Amino acid sequence: MADAMTNPIDFALGQRTRFYEELGAFLRIPSVSAKSEHDGDTERAAEWVREQLVRAGLEAETIATPGHPVVVGEWRGAGAEAPTVLIYGHYDVQPAEPLELWDSPPFEPEVRDGRIYARGSADDKGQLFLHIKALEAHLATRGRLPVNVIVLAEGEEEVGSPNLVPFVKEYRDRLAAQTVVISDSAMFAPGLPSLLFSLRGLAYFEIHATGPASDLHSGAYGGAVLNPANALARVVAGLHDESGRITIPGFYDDVLTPSDETLAGIRGLPFDADEYASEVGTVPTGGEVAFSPLERLWIRPSCDVNGMLSGYTGEGAKTVLPGKAMAKVSFRLVPDQSPERVRKLLEEHLARVTPAGVTMEVVELHGGRPWSARLEGPLFTAATRALERSFGATPVLTGEGGSIPIVVELEEILGASSLLLGFALPGANMHAPNEWFAKDCFEKGIDTLIHLYDELAAL
Amino acid sequence: MADAMTNPIDFALGQRTRFYEELGAFLRIPSVSAKSEHDGDTERAAEWVREQLVRAGLEAETIATPGHPVVVGEWRGAGAEAPTVLIYGHYDVQPAEPLELWDSPPFEPEVRDGRIYARGSADDKGQLFLHIKALEAHLATRGRLPVNVIVLAEGEEEVGSPNLVPFVKEYRDRLAAQTVVISDSAMFAPGLPSLLFSLRGLAYFEIHATGPASDLHSGAYGGAVLNPANALARVVAGLHDESGRITIPGFYDDVLTPSDETLAGIRGLPFDADEYASEVGTVPTGGEVAFSPLERLWIRPSCDVNGMLSGYTGEGAKTVLPGKAMAKVSFRLVPDQSPERVRKLLEEHLARVTPAGVTMEVVELHGGRPWSARLEGPLFTAATRALERSFGATPVLTGEGGSIPIVVELEEILGASSLLLGFALPGANMHAPNEWFAKDCFEKGIDTLIHLYDELAAL
Repeated sequence: MADAMTNPIDFALGQRTRFYEELGAFLRIPSVSAKSEHDGDTERAAEWVREQLVRAGLEAETIATPGHPVVVGEWRGAGAEAPTVLIYGHYDVQPAEPLELWDSPPFEPEVRDGRIYARGSADDKGQLFLHIKALEAHLATRGRLPVNVIVLAEGEEEVGSPNLVPFVKEYRDRLAAQTVVISDSAMFAPGLPSLLFSLRGLAYFEIHATGPASDLHSGAYGGAVLNPANALARVVAGLHDESGRITIPGFYDDVLTPSDETLAGIRGLPFDADEYASEVGTVPTGGEVAFSPLERLWIRPSCDVNGMLSGYTGEGAKTVLPGKAMAKVSFRLVPDQSPERVRKLLEEHLARVTPAGVTMEVVELHGGRPWSARLEGPLFTAATRALERSFGATPVLTGEGGSIPIVVELEEILGASSLLLGFALPGANMHAPNEWFAKDCFEKGIDTLIHLYDELAAL
Repeated sequence: MADAMTNPIDFALGQRTRFYEELGAFLRIPSVSAKSEHDGDTERAAEWVREQLVRAGLEAETIATPGHPVVVGEWRGAGAEAPTVLIYGHYDVQPAEPLELWDSPPFEPEVRDGRIYARGSADDKGQLFLHIKALEAHLATRGRLPVNVIVLAEGEEEVGSPNLVPFVKEYRDRLAAQTVVISDSAMFAPGLPSLLFSLRGLAYFEIHATGPASDLHSGAYGGAVLNPANALARVVAGLHDESGRITIPGFYDDVLTPSDETLAGIRGLPFDADEYASEVGTVPTGGEVAFSPLERLWIRPSCDVNGMLSGYTGEGAKTVLPGKAMAKVSFRLVPDQSPERVRKLLEEHLARVTPAGVTMEVVELHGGRPWSARLEGPLFTAATRALERSFGATPVLTGEGGSIPIVVELEEILGASSLLLGFALPGANMHAPNEWFAKDCFEKGIDTLIHLYDELAAL
């Protein structure tokens, strides 16, 4: 299959049309891991990844877990002396709801204005696919890779990777690698490639407020019976003070202040509040007033309602005093906060503030620790050079407000260092309607990764 | 058809089995006025009422409105010198959701422990039916009624009676009456019949909070973008202070203090907090701490969340920062508050408290003024005697936390006085799952109304 007549970069250029067609097929599989009705699709997506890895020239197998399967691809032809790089990605996607807000169906990819619109195009199918194609480009043109490669693609990232840590522990020897490479994040701006210095962690809960034994007539009982929906609104509102600071006692105890260098780096980045407002449709007034928007996103924890439901929410006026109310509330964490401690602090806080007449129950749905990169060394140098070669620009160091909880776990279990370089653009609507991935970033992304494998050989 | 061999009370006793069968047929019609999918059922319920009135011996017709039809029944054989009594009721019902909380299907009446369980059994089909059967008992045994009677049964009470006031104005002459009688409320306790001294009014709104242009990733934006669901929770929570008092400036300006006699009457009523707690499943800790539960229900306004929805509320953890959030919030009003003024005050309040980064829009869904009874005179005397004859107990004066907005309108348009005597029992789950009506109250209710028409002849 080797095509010595060309090099990997030119090969990728020549195969671009086919690459887009294949990506389209991948995006058309609605592999929503959170919904059991999509279990068949999720399995189909795993098999699709396995076949692609084999086509690229790796050995690959799909390995069952108690949840969705893990795909493992391997190429070990670089020899025992060469570095081994583990590429982590995920083939599952977020639910697409609310469907009515999509301009084109979430699982029918459509190209508009140089962007591929589809659920998973940015998070993370599109970016996992970049790696597969970069590997294919090397193997198709040179018959070999500059480093040993393991591809680890899971199908449960969007539901908190409940089976991945046990899996990695079980296959610890087979997955042994010095370096973990992950493309599941965004660039700071178009044309400005980025390397991550941190990821926030996550602690995601449901709070269930229960009051009367059943729904009541809001006239016959309103004013006497404490309304669980009012009580829950009060508890949720009380999680922040007027300055946007989270009020849970002890919540900030484990929050570290980043180095002066990191702080200076953040302050040096161009942030245009007007542009941000025009992108998201509103001014960035969330979070702590004492910090800048980028600081609030990257180095400060946050607390958001992800969903809230109580009573009658259909057409018209139902005069009901609901018997219960539910809020999904999640916290983004920064080093050295942990989801376990945040849960404990939240439960203690609720025990203090829950008024008589209702009960509050906390259910933990999802947790992950925050991560910090090692900012020096050959790994960063290699990544910087690869990005410079492809983008013609020096990458900036950025934080990431989102969470990839497996990063810390992979580092600890495998004894590896992680490199996170993503190719989505700001406003890509990951987790929202109209998710997109820029074609330009798709193409530069493959080139970057082709260069990266070369650079990593020098580690 | 007159059966001179017996009297109305004995007739009702003898026909009891048939009456229950007929009530069952009425309750089986799912006449949910709020849901257009039930429009056919609502129309069927109107026609059912019309046929029952004709069977009882009245002339009756179903009159179209821009919404659901109004049924008008008439018997004017008592002569121009005799009083005319207008009986108001409604044949529509609340939505039955959440269906899973019903122990038997809402539209398949089931008798358990001496109670008829079905949506509408208490509110108001069952109580409207009592009047029809009392009229039938008089006409079947005596061939006449002691007073002229108009029955006005609407099908939009549960959606705020949007077409009834125009209807009553249009048919003002035909509906002319000195007295309006309504059975759509509850007794204070089993065996303790009650006459209402007041009804609370209602001002029901949806508040829509809008922030970013679409749902966002809660990691990538959380802490920078103000979350509309957090902001709405804060606004809703802020509607009450720590003492349970509503914080909207000016809200209490129009609240009247009832007479010392009314206050003494309320304080004289037996209220067992433990019994109340066991009935509703929680202690009565809602509302203003400065007032007793009955005062908070009857003579003080209240504010309740009736429904709240934002973000992702399905299974699992979706890390979304919702672009919008909605709360249905209603206020119960007391004399002399008005829904128009409350709306104005709410809008002014929201304009002051809405933080930068979100917008709040208020949509009014439903409004009705509070009502106070005239507590002296022959009307109350007649009702007291009728209740004493049937129940063997002197009625107590009670307030009602719920609203029947049409009462004030009927009084004003027709120049009539209203008498509100209801036969539901506390905990009847009006507007909630497992609504019920006691068979004992059904039977005593018919007897009371048979006596009442006799007593009203003396007005």
